[in-house]
Amino acid sequence: MSLKSFIEVSPDSHFPIQNLPYGVFKPDLDSGPRPGVAIGDFVLDLSVISLAGLFNGPFLNSSDCLAQFLALGRPAWKEARTTIQKLLSSTEPTLRDNASLREQALVPMGKVEMLVPTAIGDYTDFFSSMHHAKNCGTIFVGPENPIPPNWFHLPIAYHGRASSVVISGTDIIRPRGQGHPAPNSPPYFGPSQKMDFELEMAAVVGLGNDLGKPINVNDAVDHIFGLVLMNDWSARDIQAWEYIPLGPFLGKSFGTTISPWIVTLEALEQFACDAPQQDPPPLPYLAEKISQNYDISLEAAIKPAGQKHGSVVTKSNFKHLYWTLTQQLAHHTINGCNLRPGDLLGTGTISGPEPESLGCLLELTWNGQKPLSLSGCGSSRKFLEDGDEVIITGYCKGDGYTIGFGTCSGKVVPSPP
Amino acid sequence: MSLKSFIEVSPDSHFPIQNLPYGVFKPDLDSGPRPGVAIGDFVLDLSVISLAGLFNGPFLNSSDCLAQFLALGRPAWKEARTTIQKLLSSTEPTLRDNASLREQALVPMGKVEMLVPTAIGDYTDFFSSMHHAKNCGTIFVGPENPIPPNWFHLPIAYHGRASSVVISGTDIIRPRGQGHPAPNSPPYFGPSQKMDFELEMAAVVGLGNDLGKPINVNDAVDHIFGLVLMNDWSARDIQAWEYIPLGPFLGKSFGTTISPWIVTLEALEQFACDAPQQDPPPLPYLAEKISQNYDISLEAAIKPAGQKHGSVVTKSNFKHLYWTLTQQLAHHTINGCNLRPGDLLGTGTISGPEPESLGCLLELTWNGQKPLSLSGCGSSRKFLEDGDEVIITGYCKGDGYTIGFGTCSGKVVPSPP
Ligand SMILES: [Ca+2]
Ligand SMILES: [Ca+2]
Ligand SMILES: [Mg+2]
Ligand SMILES: [Mg+2]
Ligand code: NI
Repeated sequence: MSLKSFIEVSPDSHFPIQNLPYGVFKPDLDSGPRPGVAIGDFVLDLSVISLAGLFNGPFLNSSDCLAQFLALGRPAWKEARTTIQKLLSSTEPTLRDNASLREQALVPMGKVEMLVPTAIGDYTDFFSSMHHAKNCGTIFVGPENPIPPNWFHLPIAYHGRASSVVISGTDIIRPRGQGHPAPNSPPYFGPSQKMDFELEMAAVVGLGNDLGKPINVNDAVDHIFGLVLMNDWSARDIQAWEYIPLGPFLGKSFGTTISPWIVTLEALEQFACDAPQQDPPPLPYLAEKISQNYDISLEAAIKPAGQKHGSVVTKSNFKHLYWTLTQQLAHHTINGCNLRPGDLLGTGTISGPEPESLGCLLELTWNGQKPLSLSGCGSSRKFLEDGDEVIITGYCKGDGYTIGFGTCSGKVVPSPP
Repeated sequence: MSLKSFIEVSPDSHFPIQNLPYGVFKPDLDSGPRPGVAIGDFVLDLSVISLAGLFNGPFLNSSDCLAQFLALGRPAWKEARTTIQKLLSSTEPTLRDNASLREQALVPMGKVEMLVPTAIGDYTDFFSSMHHAKNCGTIFVGPENPIPPNWFHLPIAYHGRASSVVISGTDIIRPRGQGHPAPNSPPYFGPSQKMDFELEMAAVVGLGNDLGKPINVNDAVDHIFGLVLMNDWSARDIQAWEYIPLGPFLGKSFGTTISPWIVTLEALEQFACDAPQQDPPPLPYLAEKISQNYDISLEAAIKPAGQKHGSVVTKSNFKHLYWTLTQQLAHHTINGCNLRPGDLLGTGTISGPEPESLGCLLELTWNGQKPLSLSGCGSSRKFLEDGDEVIITGYCKGDGYTIGFGTCSGKVVPSPP
């Protein structure tokens, strides 16, 4: 590791100078939203360094913060990264030796309020983990042919709800709705009895496309700005009753949490790894020259009310995905559908092959049949209880540093009376 | 009919002084979008009459045109209606007798370009016609229990794609995608072979709600600003192959057309009628004190390339819907999901009980098994062909006038090579 910042960054920090993820923050209650970059325990306020003539970007004058920057495309993203990395490096005196500018430009992370970093025009959620698809199919359809025949031919997805995407730290109100546990009795109504999380990541679309102009799978990478962690909260009882024939709706739309820092593909590039072999081979429009995933370790923990520490309930990895991000994006646009900067493409629950790598309680407890013990607090869970906080983290281990995503957390609070 | 405008409006015009729908238009290529109201063959430019001191509204200073107005709620909508109706009435001299102001404020409708009238944060499509649900179920699942058991307990819906909602008159590019006609052969890829329209209407959300705060079914009407016509274009082959288990995605997301004029609930109120009796009775959160539909005549016509006139292929009516708009809205928010001003809630295909009132070709041709003859051109259709224009209209017949929605049209153009 040669590159170092003049800002002290501990080796287990998620935000060394090799990362430099983008977010939108408010330095205090009275200020408007502004774009920033995470470095160690600080947020670099891009509007301050821009005013000082050290950075320029169209997004600094825009109320939608990052949207214009996202729309510029990879050359501009690379240029911005180079500028910021230089400014923060230990060998560059401009900011390092200017105490008053440093004071203004570097805001302690503990002081700021993070916001949803882009205007999300549309949010799509895929279903790209084969292990997740197989487990869900086994639970709901049975062990013979648990994966529907279309699954191996296309990256299945549904449109999610954009309005209820919230930033990490936002409480999640337990949804009320209809459930239908027994075929011959009428449905009940009330607070969901099967609240679940889903361990996911999401791609943030950079450059969009015009309606009617599909994006070639080999160009798709240039339309992805970066990745965030995502928890696609799910009410399994509501979902199970409503989803035939048009898919999930209220079982999902009460809230979806994302992490505040968008880690760029530039920062992730060194953690790229081969994607799984696909059999049958994909149709030509999904066959890509380079088919890659990223080696990103993922964890989800449940922290019950009153506990000091969360209990890690699953350890998974982004590399388990069968369909790649670029295949997802190419498929999404093959019918002419237009993507816009800031759109969110969720991967779907990222389950791995091992029992301890399953990405949701539905799988971990086999739809509530096998309660899951939480470490350190003597209790167990079939589904989430009020007061439970779910904390997702993700990181890549580099040589002497960590490229991380921070956390994506949310606490379940009771339904309204 | 006592109320009359000083502007001459023919009795079959959709836009008499009793209607006054809102839209967003550009008077010419160089001008920015601005809000307007339709009157006869003219658009009343609200920014002009506002400058003249005759109207004030927050939306006149806003780049998202109607969003701020929608957020004001019914008292403000009523006040605006009263002001505009008075200004246009035959007995009011202010505008009537001011030739130069009239010249500026009233733009011939044929000259303007209409735009999607609101920023659509999210677009939801329901499935509220029992006749449509029954026919689709019979075609895809079989004649025994064609309607899934959840259908009578809740208004089923899915999230649609907001980015590809386009204004009437926009060409629709035939989507490419995967189809799978035979269970034992691999899927094919190519232009959709089963392009269809869906005759729908959509509610435009006015006042939204905060995340976690459901809207009571008896208050729901105050959250609906008005209605537009909608064509939810559908590629049946793509849809049939992709929709298990997460619902429609690329079979719908290539384009959804709406009509440009939002007809307000105030204008429609006199055409309210009783909604169908619901059996079983809905759960308490869906049981409303007043359960009403609107008597809106709907038609869809297909105009093949080179033909002068469209051939009317269906005549339906909004009153056939089983689930009311207010039940749809209350259900949508019961889990805490937040709606925002400008959100679109499609009704789903509006099919009536008679064979000539079915709202899409899937039903009219029974999935292509019974070709439909088009009048006046000697040809027939299983599904839409390139060059076909689909024209949807809707209107309510008043005493000596028509409250209409104008048209919602789009032409199918070939897939890219
Ligand atoms: Ca999911
Ligand atoms: Ca529809
Ligand atoms: Mg969600
Ligand atoms: Mg559509
Ligand atoms: Ni959406």
